[in-house]
Amino acid sequence: MTDTNTNTNAGTDEGTRGELTGFSVNQMTVKQLPLPELVKGLVGLGVPGVGLWREPVAEFGLEATARLVRDAGLAVTSLCRGGFFTAADAAGRARAIDDNRAAIDEAAVLGTDSLVLVSGGLPPGSRDLVGAREQVAEALAELWPYGAERGVRLLVEPLHPMYAADRCVVSTLGQALDLAGWFPAEWVGVCVDTYHLWWDDQIAVQLDRAGREGRLHRYQLADWVTPLPEGVLTGRGQLGDGAVDFRWFGAVVERAGYTGPVEVEIFNDGMWARDGQEVLSETVARYREHAL
Amino acid sequence: MTDTNTNTNAGTDEGTRGELTGFSVNQMTVKQLPLPELVKGLVGLGVPGVGLWREPVAEFGLEATARLVRDAGLAVTSLCRGGFFTAADAAGRARAIDDNRAAIDEAAVLGTDSLVLVSGGLPPGSRDLVGAREQVAEALAELWPYGAERGVRLLVEPLHPMYAADRCVVSTLGQALDLAGWFPAEWVGVCVDTYHLWWDDQIAVQLDRAGREGRLHRYQLADWVTPLPEGVLTGRGQLGDGAVDFRWFGAVVERAGYTGPVEVEIFNDGMWARDGQEVLSETVARYREHAL
Repeated sequence: MTDTNTNTNAGTDEGTRGELTGFSVNQMTVKQLPLPELVKGLVGLGVPGVGLWREPVAEFGLEATARLVRDAGLAVTSLCRGGFFTAADAAGRARAIDDNRAAIDEAAVLGTDSLVLVSGGLPPGSRDLVGAREQVAEALAELWPYGAERGVRLLVEPLHPMYAADRCVVSTLGQALDLAGWFPAEWVGVCVDTYHLWWDDQIAVQLDRAGREGRLHRYQLADWVTPLPEGVLTGRGQLGDGAVDFRWFGAVVERAGYTGPVEVEIFNDGMWARDGQEVLSETVARYREHAL
Repeated sequence: MTDTNTNTNAGTDEGTRGELTGFSVNQMTVKQLPLPELVKGLVGLGVPGVGLWREPVAEFGLEATARLVRDAGLAVTSLCRGGFFTAADAAGRARAIDDNRAAIDEAAVLGTDSLVLVSGGLPPGSRDLVGAREQVAEALAELWPYGAERGVRLLVEPLHPMYAADRCVVSTLGQALDLAGWFPAEWVGVCVDTYHLWWDDQIAVQLDRAGREGRLHRYQLADWVTPLPEGVLTGRGQLGDGAVDFRWFGAVVERAGYTGPVEVEIFNDGMWARDGQEVLSETVARYREHAL
């Protein structure tokens, strides 16, 4: 498995819709849409890929979801999310490993080679960042062979540093690559999201490195808008509404040799409150306007 | 000027209170206290230093403030803040330079050698991070000789990446040192604040570098607590309430050769709503418990 585009058909829908080749929308962007409506909307817009989340997939049924997207000809560009490896005790860490094995199984059933991992924050009451990061490394060591047997890559996703305490102790692409570097590039890569990494003055250097090291396996888009909402979880911006220069970022990603899908993943209370199909159409239009 | 402790007397109050040598409280931590009450409270607690902000200083009067703190034997460990260099046009950038010259003059009158700079975010409507950073470098180039003539160092403060769009395009200590590196170490240094930098996996390496390069000139403390409030400006934590390991951080700062003041600077709505003298006492107690 050496091709970043393996196991997706996000590049097969040519013709008038060829410009959306490789494009994908993560279902959390329009979480108000039930899966069948999401799939229908994407197909209608000529979007060839979809990113899925475990909880709504489980709700609809794993096999039923796999059948639905396969029959619609959609590529599952990623499954979000595994991870949350850090825990205060061994029992907690073991539960996380079990849960991630289940996530790998689910990814395989859904036909995606990419399981996105949010590492987890500091265990409750802990201030030991180094120790938490060691727990993440140990979990990856335990899990990657399980993923390899099932054709599922583990993708470490660095999250914005504002999540370091409570969600993810991996905060930069450089750090994610240092961590992934202990494991085979075919089975442990990185997921790059503009929302989390746009601010980093080292991002171009590290994207180039990610390409050279063969670990750049998923690319997600969301814009950075201010002011941030309380809790800072649901304030990601629609493409074009914020500070991210998507054409610049995309050019660096392309120069790094990335040929895989480009997936929009936005968590935004305002967008969730609107008509889902309208948001889907807007997202495609914004992608064309700001990122294509 | 080669001693990081120059121009402060924060180390002169020995005896029973010697353990607070070098300790300082930034006035924004208890902004509810008028300057005379702040000074009285600090002296009563044996705190030898104070960090000042331009706006309340201007309100009380620059000369009057200088006299008040000098007569009380307090060291002014820093003046916050200059900066906000980035602007959409040349006129805006020129206004920023003028304002920073005024800030340098104020620092000199107050008897502090340290003007803390918050660089500024993206100009309105801009997505050009590289360009904004160039504006910061150009402003430093123009200002440092003016500071040098008046014995005032410019301290670049990297702010947490969550402020990159709207407050500060300098987000890590490594980046701040790269930027400061164009200028003489005696006159352009860095201000390190635990709140902004605690998450960075490169922080120990960069602190060591800051020491070696002679640019580590101010050290500030605040804790990281979640959930963050809307706007993420006023949610810094009292020492001990959050994720920061102050003893670990302080040991690295000390190993880097830093012997200057340790200044607590907390913006917290809850602390501002309480009795200021009580907050001051608590801050000293927390410093002893978590950082000393």
